[in-house]
Amino acid sequence: MNSTTERIDTYLDKELDNYIRETSRLCAQPSVSATGEGIDACANLVAGMLESRGIQVQRFETSGNPIIVGRFEGASDRTLLLYNHYDVQPPEPLELWTTPPFEPAIRDGSFYARGAADDKGEFISRLAAFDAVRLAHDGEMPCGVLFVVEGEEEVGSPTIAQFVRDNKDILQCHGGIWEFGSVDLNDHPELTLGYRGILTVEIIVETMVMDAHSGGGHMLPSAIWRLIRLLDGLKDTDERIQIEGFYSGARPPTEHDLELLEALPDMEPWIREHLGVREFVRGLSGKALTRAVFDPTCNIQGMASGYLGEGMKTIVPAKAMAKIDFRLVPGQDPEDIFVKLRAHLDDHGYGDVEATPLAMMWPAKVDPIDPLVTLTVETAEAVYEKQSLIDPLIGGSSPVYAFADPLGGIPIVAAGINYPGGRVHAPDEHFRIADFLKGSRHVARILDGFASIPDNNG
Amino acid sequence: MNSTTERIDTYLDKELDNYIRETSRLCAQPSVSATGEGIDACANLVAGMLESRGIQVQRFETSGNPIIVGRFEGASDRTLLLYNHYDVQPPEPLELWTTPPFEPAIRDGSFYARGAADDKGEFISRLAAFDAVRLAHDGEMPCGVLFVVEGEEEVGSPTIAQFVRDNKDILQCHGGIWEFGSVDLNDHPELTLGYRGILTVEIIVETMVMDAHSGGGHMLPSAIWRLIRLLDGLKDTDERIQIEGFYSGARPPTEHDLELLEALPDMEPWIREHLGVREFVRGLSGKALTRAVFDPTCNIQGMASGYLGEGMKTIVPAKAMAKIDFRLVPGQDPEDIFVKLRAHLDDHGYGDVEATPLAMMWPAKVDPIDPLVTLTVETAEAVYEKQSLIDPLIGGSSPVYAFADPLGGIPIVAAGINYPGGRVHAPDEHFRIADFLKGSRHVARILDGFASIPDNNG
Repeated sequence: MNSTTERIDTYLDKELDNYIRETSRLCAQPSVSATGEGIDACANLVAGMLESRGIQVQRFETSGNPIIVGRFEGASDRTLLLYNHYDVQPPEPLELWTTPPFEPAIRDGSFYARGAADDKGEFISRLAAFDAVRLAHDGEMPCGVLFVVEGEEEVGSPTIAQFVRDNKDILQCHGGIWEFGSVDLNDHPELTLGYRGILTVEIIVETMVMDAHSGGGHMLPSAIWRLIRLLDGLKDTDERIQIEGFYSGARPPTEHDLELLEALPDMEPWIREHLGVREFVRGLSGKALTRAVFDPTCNIQGMASGYLGEGMKTIVPAKAMAKIDFRLVPGQDPEDIFVKLRAHLDDHGYGDVEATPLAMMWPAKVDPIDPLVTLTVETAEAVYEKQSLIDPLIGGSSPVYAFADPLGGIPIVAAGINYPGGRVHAPDEHFRIADFLKGSRHVARILDGFASIPDNNG
Repeated sequence: MNSTTERIDTYLDKELDNYIRETSRLCAQPSVSATGEGIDACANLVAGMLESRGIQVQRFETSGNPIIVGRFEGASDRTLLLYNHYDVQPPEPLELWTTPPFEPAIRDGSFYARGAADDKGEFISRLAAFDAVRLAHDGEMPCGVLFVVEGEEEVGSPTIAQFVRDNKDILQCHGGIWEFGSVDLNDHPELTLGYRGILTVEIIVETMVMDAHSGGGHMLPSAIWRLIRLLDGLKDTDERIQIEGFYSGARPPTEHDLELLEALPDMEPWIREHLGVREFVRGLSGKALTRAVFDPTCNIQGMASGYLGEGMKTIVPAKAMAKIDFRLVPGQDPEDIFVKLRAHLDDHGYGDVEATPLAMMWPAKVDPIDPLVTLTVETAEAVYEKQSLIDPLIGGSSPVYAFADPLGGIPIVAAGINYPGGRVHAPDEHFRIADFLKGSRHVARILDGFASIPDNNG
């Protein structure tokens, strides 16, 4: 450990209580994006916390909640983005909280409040890291720092992507740390390198103006049979999606990706037990299950038609609905996939079928050999004293894409203060104060080292 | 017209008002099988009306509502069954009735009350026919008459089939007239010779113990995809049902059936306009549409799985449900079809899928060349002075089967007092008094002639 790192750690140890108090101040301010409660006051509080550190703050009004952007110049021209959000989930059901959600409390070494873990504590841990690094460098940051703190993450970040596209010049940076880093159940630091994109589409089939008596089933066109045949034509029994051009551009895992997948723990026993799965798709098991995350999917979220009550009703349904989602791998584009889906429907005799996109998110993935990944992993292992679990791609989606590509393909990693028991989105949300300290130390080390690493493509 | 027929018609003309008054008495007594209101009192009223004519009456208690059976011996040993029901649909919504549902009223030559058309007026018109024929034969009936008046038709006749099987000796007869005869929009008498059977099955697929995040769609088994593939495997795109042995025993239309189908009016324009159908199954049109009623069907009444609300929910559904019905043609047996469906599921890897029969009705069809059909058609054309429309098989199902086969394959036809505008099951239910008279005359002629016709198979 060099002397800068020592100064950082010493400062964070000594000042921990102050940062926990600062977290208390932020968590005492409600900021529920689902209802709007306290949003404006919380945005101002966040802006004030940045300004008090000499960080240049801009508040951007959007069609939704304000976005707070803070920039601090560094000794090098390299800048690191820190993404967080100040909004929280609704606190209900209130009666299940041990102490009230907006009255932060410490019990058994953990800090309890709505938003403690997701994502206010994490934001303050990064302010602590910022302060520690600056102090260790006698007031100067080795790299520039760009804070982006949005207020709509808990309602699906509907404005952030457009905001980034509209403000590329202001947001120029060379890498980023996403919110919500975590350790696993055995306190190994986790690192997610990639997220799949998603396209959700609602499909509506109408074959008659009203339901008809099922005595006419030998001649009347059934909306539900039509929808079943449409859906069954979307993929074959090997789960291969039949939309023309669906896989074009989809990037398979690299050698590095495969190595990382190989090193991940086997989740099969846990899934079998927890979800009661008897057989996985295509009979997959073991490592093949883990690798299948690189296969894009066509999933049905819900489907309904006709009579759904008790007993029976002898009708031929006139209308049928399905909501489907495609999870897309790096190289695929939800807008392009929607165009191809529409063409597939038109080409297969479903020109009259209504297909409406409900949501799109793009895939995003950082290269495992990116120097920021190496820095994040090495500093994590130094702080946590355990091996990192690195996931090259997870099945879910994230607004990471909203920053990565528009800002020039910057690498984005995650580091933070969470653990699997933190009851995120639930009553008694909390973080462990020891994790807060480790998370601060980890982010501080990344801030300290970021100026010295090369760009992956440079 | 012979002198017996003249005496019958003269009597019915003269006594019409008395029978309308008798209909009023019966319709003033509520008898709602859905709620039980007035059922017992109405059963007693019906029994009394039969007894007052010297008909031997038995009242049978069932697990549901009582069944009233009346028998009157005739000069010949041939007996004709008259099936009716004394229960009615609930009268709601009451505010849409011009006059209260259980206060019969006559307006513009029509008789209004709940149960007027379905089926109390029809029952009284048959008592009128019975009285007229007996009088014309000086007190003796030329054939035996068997009245069966049940009290659960409006709730699906759940006990009648078992009742018939348990009382075959009491119910011996040689032919029957079903309830609900009708004329069409142009006052042509209609005659339905056959009904399809039905098997309704609820299918439930469960692949996990709870819904899962759709980020796992590349590996987690989706209940809805499994159900879609199961259903899509039940029939091919030509609507041919793929269950092994499904068609074995299914009888195609006879030459006579085809001739009758050919003579029916073309319903295609009406269906296209009324239901907004753009394309029929298999591209059928014209006469091929009419003939397709001889194809058994596999229909989906309703289907549901996963998230059905507004917007989206990124899940892989753990459970999916469909209610399907098979309409079966003569020669098919719903119990046998259920066994074959279960075997199909087991043979195709769906052994874990739950399939529960919800309802079964058997097909029933009288031969177009049966002498009772000829008698019914000839007497109808004499009374109505218009050509009969004879449908060899309709798409729907009927409890006719509960009598036809168990009683030795007797022919059952229909004759009655209804017309398409009668608002059956709706507010302002009514029959036209002129139709009541014609219906009485028609049934009287069948009663008068039944002793002289041979059994089809004798």
